[in-house]
Amino acid sequence: MSAQTTGPVLIVGTGLLGTSIGMALRRLGVEVELADASPSALALARDMGAGMIAHEGVDPALVVVATPPDVTARVIDEALREHPRAIVTDVASVKTIIARELEACGADTTRYVGSHPMAGRERSGAGAADADLFRQRPWVIAPVAGSAERAIRIVRSLALDVGALPLDYRAEDHDAAVACVSHVPQLMASLLAASLTRAPQEALGLSGQGLRDSTRIAHSDPRLWAAIVGGNSREIAEVLRGISRDLLDLLHSLDSAAGDPLAPGLVAQVTKVLEAGNDGVERIPGKHGGAPRRYAEVSVLVPDTPGHLGRLFTELGEADVNIEDFALEHSAGAPMGVGRVLVDPAAAAPARAWLTDHGWTVLDGAH
Amino acid sequence: MSAQTTGPVLIVGTGLLGTSIGMALRRLGVEVELADASPSALALARDMGAGMIAHEGVDPALVVVATPPDVTARVIDEALREHPRAIVTDVASVKTIIARELEACGADTTRYVGSHPMAGRERSGAGAADADLFRQRPWVIAPVAGSAERAIRIVRSLALDVGALPLDYRAEDHDAAVACVSHVPQLMASLLAASLTRAPQEALGLSGQGLRDSTRIAHSDPRLWAAIVGGNSREIAEVLRGISRDLLDLLHSLDSAAGDPLAPGLVAQVTKVLEAGNDGVERIPGKHGGAPRRYAEVSVLVPDTPGHLGRLFTELGEADVNIEDFALEHSAGAPMGVGRVLVDPAAAAPARAWLTDHGWTVLDGAH
Repeated sequence: MSAQTTGPVLIVGTGLLGTSIGMALRRLGVEVELADASPSALALARDMGAGMIAHEGVDPALVVVATPPDVTARVIDEALREHPRAIVTDVASVKTIIARELEACGADTTRYVGSHPMAGRERSGAGAADADLFRQRPWVIAPVAGSAERAIRIVRSLALDVGALPLDYRAEDHDAAVACVSHVPQLMASLLAASLTRAPQEALGLSGQGLRDSTRIAHSDPRLWAAIVGGNSREIAEVLRGISRDLLDLLHSLDSAAGDPLAPGLVAQVTKVLEAGNDGVERIPGKHGGAPRRYAEVSVLVPDTPGHLGRLFTELGEADVNIEDFALEHSAGAPMGVGRVLVDPAAAAPARAWLTDHGWTVLDGAH
Repeated sequence: MSAQTTGPVLIVGTGLLGTSIGMALRRLGVEVELADASPSALALARDMGAGMIAHEGVDPALVVVATPPDVTARVIDEALREHPRAIVTDVASVKTIIARELEACGADTTRYVGSHPMAGRERSGAGAADADLFRQRPWVIAPVAGSAERAIRIVRSLALDVGALPLDYRAEDHDAAVACVSHVPQLMASLLAASLTRAPQEALGLSGQGLRDSTRIAHSDPRLWAAIVGGNSREIAEVLRGISRDLLDLLHSLDSAAGDPLAPGLVAQVTKVLEAGNDGVERIPGKHGGAPRRYAEVSVLVPDTPGHLGRLFTELGEADVNIEDFALEHSAGAPMGVGRVLVDPAAAAPARAWLTDHGWTVLDGAH
């Protein structure tokens, strides 16, 4: 694979995202120069292989601003003035407020296009960087009113070069979307984890994987997130208001029950929350199906010895069934695992019949 | 390892927990008989290797009640009457209400000891069972006032035999603890996932691993959880009230900011929530995983066209790699997915080399 991106690329801000972009570009042979307010963060990024430390008078073709979001607009404005031939983009998690700030300071936005790679980790900093961080991840391209076509093309090439999937969004649509799928989930995880500070110590001894998964992102950096949430407060409040309403309804039912598990309305209220949760999680694309296509699941017992999965997939291929997703639930103690094959709903019944005919045990009514 | 538990063990209720207990005991050679109101659930548990279908006049030494929690007390009471020499335990997620119901119906509770294995999955049913489900997991032993020492000893042996770590709790302390670490996390995941039903469709396309992890348990069974929440409503309400207060404070700050990221108090309020989240998540023992890692992960790019998964598994089979678990991550619109293959740690490096040699793109820096 050869890079579409023409260097030198100047990356300003060598945290997790800036360093990861540098590493991915360096792997393609693109010249990368790095800048950061912190000399030690900068040295770490260089040592991770993200590029060299920017020299005086660097003349970049592209500037990637990867600073915290509350200084992003200022740094973009500076980059546009300092490098009059460069295209400039940023990777901040909020887009509308940055566009508005650039407009307010009269920046030359023909050369600016916003972007937001939908990739991250709960760990921050160059030390957590990964050249594969963006592989197959969405990368939002959010032009402003004045963005030139050439600038959009160059930023899209950057996304493709680091292995991401460019998606076009208006800044406002982007901000509404990330409120739902990123900012509110972060706050809910933090609110849940915060409630553990009030739990008796012995309670924590009963923690399981469910709690760990639900609170994993509560490890996130408070300073970074204060800036993100501050930059998208209206959209976040809108989503949180809905959750708050549901929570207060639930709390009301629990209180009214006064400890009686069969109190009128209690089971219905709890079931409503759980069922809405089932519906919501089904909308997440990827594992377990979801939007926009719906998949049917075919569950089949798979013996725990090498070769059987290969045979399963070969035989599904012979039946011309396209496998949309697959998960194997395996137990070291069981003689069998359960393979869950997601297929087009129309293909499910023929696939079950074919597999049964070929000696597989197909589980019905799984879920 | 030889079993301390003396059979026959009668397991009533062959869902996830009952079937998993049966599989773990069968592995040790303990005689297990199975009962369930659903004949097909029962047959599946038998086929998974959890024991044989209970015959008329079974005379168990130990009865394990693994039914939904809202019928647990009644089934325990029946088991105590029907099997006058048997010790009886249950695995329900709530303990106080069951003890109270048993007392109310005048059951012989010298032979009863409550328990609660802290293990589960978002999937339910015998098809998701796993003989290793309880390995290194806490198993709460919650005697009632009348429980005989011998009964406590027998239930503790059961926990040890299936690989769990027995922990003594008073029923009340158990219920307060699981409200914090299990029941409220479930409801928060469901409330968060429910908010996705109100999100625009295009927003879901930006979903990432953080959202998937935070909502994983929102797949859970609404009927089961309605019974659990109903059985522990007071303790759950207490914890949710604290979260609701924090949420309303946050919402107030967001609204007062009216879109200004530097509005007085906003940054401080958001930082407070995030920092409390950091503190709370630090209290979870064994963070970043807890139990020792059993498997290593090999990540590989998989083109989204028929035949590739079959080829992947066939070639891993040729390399004699046994696949412990597999998941395919696929973003909306991506021409590629990322297959995550879990293998024995010793097999990871050879598997990576083999796949690379066979033309697969193996991703490094797996996390």
